[in-house]
Amino acid sequence: MKPILAVNMKAYESAFGERALDVARSAREVANSYNDIRLILVANPLNASRLVSVYEDLYIQHADPVGFGAYTGFLPPGGVKLEGIRGVLLNHSEHKILYRDLEKTINMARDAGLEVMACADTPGEAASIAHLKPDMIALEPPELIGTGIPVSRAKPDVITRGVSTVKSIDEEILVLAGAGITSGNDALRALELGAQGVLVASTVMKSREPGKKMMELAEWMTRWVKR
Amino acid sequence: MKPILAVNMKAYESAFGERALDVARSAREVANSYNDIRLILVANPLNASRLVSVYEDLYIQHADPVGFGAYTGFLPPGGVKLEGIRGVLLNHSEHKILYRDLEKTINMARDAGLEVMACADTPGEAASIAHLKPDMIALEPPELIGTGIPVSRAKPDVITRGVSTVKSIDEEILVLAGAGITSGNDALRALELGAQGVLVASTVMKSREPGKKMMELAEWMTRWVKR
Amino acid sequence: MKPILAVNMKAYESAFGERALDVARSAREVANSYNDIRLILVANPLNASRLVSVYEDLYIQHADPVGFGAYTGFLPPGGVKLEGIRGVLLNHSEHKILYRDLEKTINMARDAGLEVMACADTPGEAASIAHLKPDMIALEPPELIGTGIPVSRAKPDVITRGVSTVKSIDEEILVLAGAGITSGNDALRALELGAQGVLVASTVMKSREPGKKMMELAEWMTRWVKR
Amino acid sequence: MKPILAVNMKAYESAFGERALDVARSAREVANSYNDIRLILVANPLNASRLVSVYEDLYIQHADPVGFGAYTGFLPPGGVKLEGIRGVLLNHSEHKILYRDLEKTINMARDAGLEVMACADTPGEAASIAHLKPDMIALEPPELIGTGIPVSRAKPDVITRGVSTVKSIDEEILVLAGAGITSGNDALRALELGAQGVLVASTVMKSREPGKKMMELAEWMTRWVKR
Repeated sequence: MKPILAVNMKAYESAFGERALDVARSAREVANSYNDIRLILVANPLNASRLVSVYEDLYIQHADPVGFGAYTGFLPPGGVKLEGIRGVLLNHSEHKILYRDLEKTINMARDAGLEVMACADTPGEAASIAHLKPDMIALEPPELIGTGIPVSRAKPDVITRGVSTVKSIDEEILVLAGAGITSGNDALRALELGAQGVLVASTVMKSREPGKKMMELAEWMTRWVKR
Repeated sequence: MKPILAVNMKAYESAFGERALDVARSAREVANSYNDIRLILVANPLNASRLVSVYEDLYIQHADPVGFGAYTGFLPPGGVKLEGIRGVLLNHSEHKILYRDLEKTINMARDAGLEVMACADTPGEAASIAHLKPDMIALEPPELIGTGIPVSRAKPDVITRGVSTVKSIDEEILVLAGAGITSGNDALRALELGAQGVLVASTVMKSREPGKKMMELAEWMTRWVKR
Repeated sequence: MKPILAVNMKAYESAFGERALDVARSAREVANSYNDIRLILVANPLNASRLVSVYEDLYIQHADPVGFGAYTGFLPPGGVKLEGIRGVLLNHSEHKILYRDLEKTINMARDAGLEVMACADTPGEAASIAHLKPDMIALEPPELIGTGIPVSRAKPDVITRGVSTVKSIDEEILVLAGAGITSGNDALRALELGAQGVLVASTVMKSREPGKKMMELAEWMTRWVKR
Repeated sequence: MKPILAVNMKAYESAFGERALDVARSAREVANSYNDIRLILVANPLNASRLVSVYEDLYIQHADPVGFGAYTGFLPPGGVKLEGIRGVLLNHSEHKILYRDLEKTINMARDAGLEVMACADTPGEAASIAHLKPDMIALEPPELIGTGIPVSRAKPDVITRGVSTVKSIDEEILVLAGAGITSGNDALRALELGAQGVLVASTVMKSREPGKKMMELAEWMTRWVKR
């Protein structure tokens, strides 16, 4: 399995308009250059349907537990699929939902043929989510998000406990680590701790050169594969 | 001022993928054929950024009271603007928000250069929204939405009271009527009652031929203009 | 009509246990000493049913739009009435609810025989609430709550506009002013601006001698009556 | 350890006013007659502070993740304690909260010296809650609540899996079963499946003779102890 580099575009200014297209084009280049890792771009709902025509390994940042119908402004998993988007990120620390809604949305996403990456703040929350069998769980201590203090340095035990907790429930779920990861070295360290990928955001999206930052992260993660 | 025909695509199956493109193309044709009315397409957040390249007089069905930043899955009005979308629908009966959030989102949308259509269930709610000075208020008794029982027949007084209440606070706000409108005749009746436009959804989106239904509505509303 | 002094106990430490009983006993004394004003104590849901046996002119700080039934942890207006409580405060700036839920709860409270005081942040919000015909509307600019900067000094126009807006919709609704009121003089000034009462909280509840503070406010408001 | 019979009074009409006092008095009698079990009454926030003077082994149906302060209408765990209430029920199927808020409220409740019973809809949700170390977890499949179809008959595996999942994380957490339990026999069956108690509601609160129904349940559960 290839290690995963997931880039959450969030609602940064660089996530919209022309700049978002640049990020998507850069992602394509990085993915082409580094075949040993998988690069997932997690786009804002506002333009996921537009960016997917530029970069196809694209997730959306949220979906709602609704089917097709009279749900003004809500995002049905079935609609996400019809827009050609590959997967959905759910329950991010900045967008928490009830466990019950998470269960329903995961089931609807799976039925629609979408991949699912669900976020957890703690190993305990990760345990509950593992029971819902998403494809991936991204573990991010919220107190480190956006700080530049990498989880893989500051809270290595969160990663190791998270990985073992999730795997003890379902071995097939991939566990990603996130929060505060800014350098290739931080990403590498997360893999060494047992994570199968990383979820990053500000380090790419607030960078002057998002493409270059993605390149750096991909480069270090490739080293891990080649060891 | 041209009467307004606003079509809320909601999250109907026809609002996504290829079928959504067909609706947008049809909207363009109708708008070209009927210059005396204004046709606004209100797209789901999932594909508003994609449809706007086909039909430019396009609104999005929701936005959140956030600026640019770390807001995973939320829709900043500034991002809506950067995606080239013209306006935003807020506070729909199926997506109610707190008055305080409505105020904040309207202000952010205006600052971003977006038009705003805000929904109200009752003349009383319309009054409060009029104080926030959106461009348009769409008045829709929720008990009639999707029923096929047109507000303009079943509750004409809601329209007349709504119009007078809103206009007494701010004359420049356009008042649209909605809920249960299915025929051109229903739309015409709404205009006769003082509304400056109509908001429709299921009658177009659940139709086998959405373009034909929009055409019919536009045709009747044009008669009103030519009287 | 007697001017109203409403004391919101909130969730201050002095709002619970023995100290809450002291506040209720003091309220009784003040009410007995100052017959020209009406003193309403607005108790936390945790002990409203207990305090009402000490002071009967008592409101509760919130209720939910539910009837009797399987609603674990929710507060039906009918239950509030069965507990002997006189009225309910709704939609406080710290506990905002959807307009739709406010409408439903006000109707249920009225049907149960409860008085209703609804809060508004702005004259615009007050307008919408006036359409729902509560007994009182308490207008509180949220940016002044708890600051000690009295609305009656800092934003007198909010009071005057709020009063005229509400009265233009329904003359019988009483309008109270609140936020930042700490002295008898501030309260007096609110009455001079057209308010029919004041809503206070921290100045009483965070005082070492809540009874003395209520006494002071009652004293100044009584002067207004005797003018 | 004594098996637990927890009675959730919810917001049934019998949960308020005089009838609630009757239930509390009956609970006292049952508890006095059946020393081998523990009877917990879970009162509505509207009158928990009043009922605890009649029956002391009393929980409240909800609390909020707030400390003392300006939180109009919210229920601080510290205030629950000051009102003499013994414990708090959280995250009931009818009152779901975010995992993050559950974590915060459990911690605040523990710091205040309250016992905590947290509810879970599924064994998966129970797993996540076990990581937060409440005193008890009540497992209730929501689709059976109020149906009269007992979980201990219809979904015995939910109980057995729930018990083993929770115990594998923390052996000291007591696991209760609930939903649809109406007879003493149903309660007995839950104990046989490994539950350490039951959570009931409608069968007592909608009964003409709540005391008699509690007596019946206590009687059967006592048999289990005496085996």
